[in-house]
Amino acid sequence: MDEQRAHMAASEPAPDRHELYDEDGVIRPDFVARVGAAIADRDTLYLKGHVSGLHESEIGDLIESLQPEQRHALVRLMGNDFDFTALTEVDEAIRRDIVDDLPNEKVAEGIGELDSDDAVYILEDLDEEDQEDILAKLPFTERIRLRRSLDYPEDTAGRRMQTEFVAVPPFWSVGQTIDYMREDEDLPDSFAQIFVIDPTFKLLGTVDLDRILRSKRDIKIETIMHETARPIPAEMDQEEAAQLVEQYDLLSAAVVDENDRLVGVLTIDDVVDVLQEEAEEDIMRLGGVGDEELSDDVASTVRSRFPWLMVNLATAVLASLVIGLFDATIQQMVALAVLMPIVASMGGNAGTQTLTVAVRALATRDLDIYNAARIIRREVSVGFINGVLFAVVVALLTWVWFGSGQLALVIAAAMVINMLSAGIAGIFLPLLLDKLNVDPAIASAVFVTTVTDVVGFFAFLGLAGWWFGLI
Amino acid sequence: MDEQRAHMAASEPAPDRHELYDEDGVIRPDFVARVGAAIADRDTLYLKGHVSGLHESEIGDLIESLQPEQRHALVRLMGNDFDFTALTEVDEAIRRDIVDDLPNEKVAEGIGELDSDDAVYILEDLDEEDQEDILAKLPFTERIRLRRSLDYPEDTAGRRMQTEFVAVPPFWSVGQTIDYMREDEDLPDSFAQIFVIDPTFKLLGTVDLDRILRSKRDIKIETIMHETARPIPAEMDQEEAAQLVEQYDLLSAAVVDENDRLVGVLTIDDVVDVLQEEAEEDIMRLGGVGDEELSDDVASTVRSRFPWLMVNLATAVLASLVIGLFDATIQQMVALAVLMPIVASMGGNAGTQTLTVAVRALATRDLDIYNAARIIRREVSVGFINGVLFAVVVALLTWVWFGSGQLALVIAAAMVINMLSAGIAGIFLPLLLDKLNVDPAIASAVFVTTVTDVVGFFAFLGLAGWWFGLI
Repeated sequence: MDEQRAHMAASEPAPDRHELYDEDGVIRPDFVARVGAAIADRDTLYLKGHVSGLHESEIGDLIESLQPEQRHALVRLMGNDFDFTALTEVDEAIRRDIVDDLPNEKVAEGIGELDSDDAVYILEDLDEEDQEDILAKLPFTERIRLRRSLDYPEDTAGRRMQTEFVAVPPFWSVGQTIDYMREDEDLPDSFAQIFVIDPTFKLLGTVDLDRILRSKRDIKIETIMHETARPIPAEMDQEEAAQLVEQYDLLSAAVVDENDRLVGVLTIDDVVDVLQEEAEEDIMRLGGVGDEELSDDVASTVRSRFPWLMVNLATAVLASLVIGLFDATIQQMVALAVLMPIVASMGGNAGTQTLTVAVRALATRDLDIYNAARIIRREVSVGFINGVLFAVVVALLTWVWFGSGQLALVIAAAMVINMLSAGIAGIFLPLLLDKLNVDPAIASAVFVTTVTDVVGFFAFLGLAGWWFGLI
Repeated sequence: MDEQRAHMAASEPAPDRHELYDEDGVIRPDFVARVGAAIADRDTLYLKGHVSGLHESEIGDLIESLQPEQRHALVRLMGNDFDFTALTEVDEAIRRDIVDDLPNEKVAEGIGELDSDDAVYILEDLDEEDQEDILAKLPFTERIRLRRSLDYPEDTAGRRMQTEFVAVPPFWSVGQTIDYMREDEDLPDSFAQIFVIDPTFKLLGTVDLDRILRSKRDIKIETIMHETARPIPAEMDQEEAAQLVEQYDLLSAAVVDENDRLVGVLTIDDVVDVLQEEAEEDIMRLGGVGDEELSDDVASTVRSRFPWLMVNLATAVLASLVIGLFDATIQQMVALAVLMPIVASMGGNAGTQTLTVAVRALATRDLDIYNAARIIRREVSVGFINGVLFAVVVALLTWVWFGSGQLALVIAAAMVINMLSAGIAGIFLPLLLDKLNVDPAIASAVFVTTVTDVVGFFAFLGLAGWWFGLI
C-alpha cells in the first residue's frame, strides 16, 4: 500500500475524493463514464494516469461500477499497472470472474506483488487446480509463505494473517533496531508494531513503534517491550481473534503456531473487515438470507433464499393446522378469523424484539451467566407487561369493533398468553441454540415466530371455543 | 493505556487471560467471587494488586459482572488506582450509575488522567450541571480541550476525536523529529502517525511511524509525508468518518476544523467502536428494538419497545380490516381462514429477505445508481420465481388437504401475487426511505410486512370470493 501511495505522489497528485465520489459516497457517473470511454478507446495512457494512482478501494468501487466486459478489458489494458489488491475490495463473484478471465501467469505475477494476506484472500476462492497452478508459478519463498496460510482452515486467524513482519531479538538496542529498519530492503509495506523473538522464533513480546521512537538509542528492546499476554493461535477462529484485537485496542496482533512460534501478524484492517463481516452475517441470518452477495444473479439468489422460505412454509403450515383444529368455532364466529392475525402478529413482533437483543448480546458475549438470570427475568416481565398493556388496547378495540365484551376478554387473555410466550421463547431459544453450538442468528427467528403463531392461534381460538361453549 | 501497561509490568505480571476468561470468553465466576469477597472485606491490597493491573476492558467486564453496590464499593476502595478508562467499556446505564455515585471532585481527578476522547465519552452522557461542575474542576488546558470536543454535535468526528497528537513542521528532518519525541514529556499515551502542519496549524500531511523508522536521520519530513487527500472535517458524522478510515485502511485520521486546521485525531479503536455501534444499530432497528442496552431495567425496556409494538398493532389491525371485508366468504368456506396465514407469512418472509439485503447494501453504500436497476430487476424476478415455486408447493398441499383443485388454483395465484409484491416492496421501500433521508433500517420491516399482509389477505380472500362467486 505504501509503495502505491509513494508512486501516486510521484506520478501525479492523488485525485481529490470529491472528483471520485458524490456527497453520499457513491462513485461519480461522469468518472465511470470517462473510464468506460477510455476502455473503449483502449486509451492505456489515460487509464494508467487516472486509475493506477487511485487507492485500491477506489479501484474496487470503480470495478464494481463497470460492466463485466469492461472489467476484463480494464485489467488487461492496465497490465502491470493494475494493483491486484483492488481485487480484495470487490464481491467474490466479481473477483472470481476477473481472475478466471486472466491467464494464470498474469495472476501469479499480480499476486506476487501483494502482501501475503491479500494474496491468500484472492487465492482461497479459486478452484484447487488454478490455485496449485498459480502457486507453482510463484518464487519459492513466496509459495511457502502462502501455502502455510492456506494450510490453516478457512476462517481462522492463520488464513487472515500477514506473514510479513518485523522481528528482532530482545538484546538489541533501540538504535540497532532503527538501523536495521533503515537498511533492510525486505520490510513489509507497512507495519505498526515490531515483535521480539528468541532464536527459535518463539514470541517474547511486542513493541509499538511509538515506544521505539520515544526511547533513547541505547535502551534495550527487552526493557520496552510488552510481554504478549495474549498471542493469537493460528488455529483460532477469525471472529474470536478479531474480538481479542478489538477488546485490547491493538493495532496488530501476533499470530503463533502450536509451539508459540511467531508465524504472522493480524493487521487492524483485516480485523475491521472480519468484525464487519461477522456483524453483516448476523444481520443477514436474522433476515433469513444466507451468504448471498449483491452481485449474485437471479438463479443463485433464488437458490439461496429457497431453503429458508421452505422452512417458513413448514412452520406456516403448522400454524394452519392449529387453526384447522378450530374450523367449526370459526365458522360460527367469523370475527375470530378477522382478529386472530392480530394476536399472532403482536406475539411475533414481541418475540423478534427479544430474540434480536439476545442474539446480539450472545454474539458480543455480553449475555453470560452473570446476567442471564436477570435478562431472562426481564424479558419475561417485559413480555407480560407489554402483554397486559396491549391486551387492554386490543380488548377496547374489539369491544368497539364487534360490540362483544366477552370476545374482548378472550382476545385480551390470548394476548397476554402470547406476548408472555414470545418473551420466553425469544430469550430461551437463542440461549438453547447457543448451548448446542448452533449460531442463534440462523434459526432463532423462525423458531420464535413458530412458537408465537402456534401459541397465538391456539390460545385465542381455544379460549374462544371454550368460553363460548362452541366446541 | 501505555502508562498502565508499564505500571502493570512493574508491579506484577499481567494475569493470564485464561485466569480471567473461560474458553467462551466469559469472565470466570471464581475470579468475580474473589473480587466480590475482597470488596466485602475492604481488602484494598488485593484489589490494587489484582484489579488495577488489568486491561481497561477486563476491568469493564468485571464491573459489569458485579452487583451495583459492589461496583460503587470497588471504585471507592481502589481510589486513585481505579482507571477511569474502564468506564468507557461498560453500558451507559452502569457508567452513569457509577459516576453519579462519586463526588464530582473524584470524577474530575479520574477524568483528568484520560485521553480526551475517553474523557468526552464519559462526560457527554452526564447532566449539563454535573458536566459543567466537573469541567470547572479541571486544569485550564484540559478544560479547553474537552470543551472544544463537546462543542461539536453528538455523533460527529469532533466528538470522537482525541485532541492529543504529535505534529511537526515539514522542514524538520527525521532525526529532529525522533529527538523531539525522545525529549518531549507531553506526548499522547500512544500514537500511530504523526502529522505535518504549517505555523497556522493547517494540516499538510501525515507520516506513518514505520516510514520515519526506515528513513535516514537527514531526510526531510516533507519528502516522506503523504499529502492528506482526505482529512476528516470535525463536523462530519462519525459513521461517515469511520467508513472513510475503514475504506482507506488508515491507522488513524486527522480531524480538521472549517479552516483546515488540525484539531484532533480519530484513532482506529474509536473507529472500530463506531463501526460496531452502527452495525449493531441496524440489527436492533431491523428487529424493532431501539437504543436499549442489556443493562436496562424492565420499565425502560417496556417503554422503549412499546412504540414499535403500537405501530405493529396498527398494521395488524389494517390487515384485520382487509379480512373483515371478506367475512361472508370466510363463513361459507372456513378453509380460507385456515390457509390465509400461509399466504401472508410467506410474503412477509420473502419481503424481509429482500429488505434485509437492501438495508445492508444501502448502509454499506454498495447499493447505488449503478446497480439499483439490476438489483430491482433481480429482486422482482426472484420474488416472481419463488412465488411460482411456492405456488406449486402450496397448491399441491391445499389439494391434498382440502381436496379442492379450485382452492389450490386460488391459493397458487395469491401466492405468486404476494411474493411478487414482497419483492417489489422489499426493494422499493428501503430505497424510498433512503431518498427521504429516513434510516431504512428503522421503518422498512413494518412497512414491508404491512404490504405483504394486506396484499396477501386481499389477494387470497378476494380471488376466492370472486372465483367461487360468493361475493
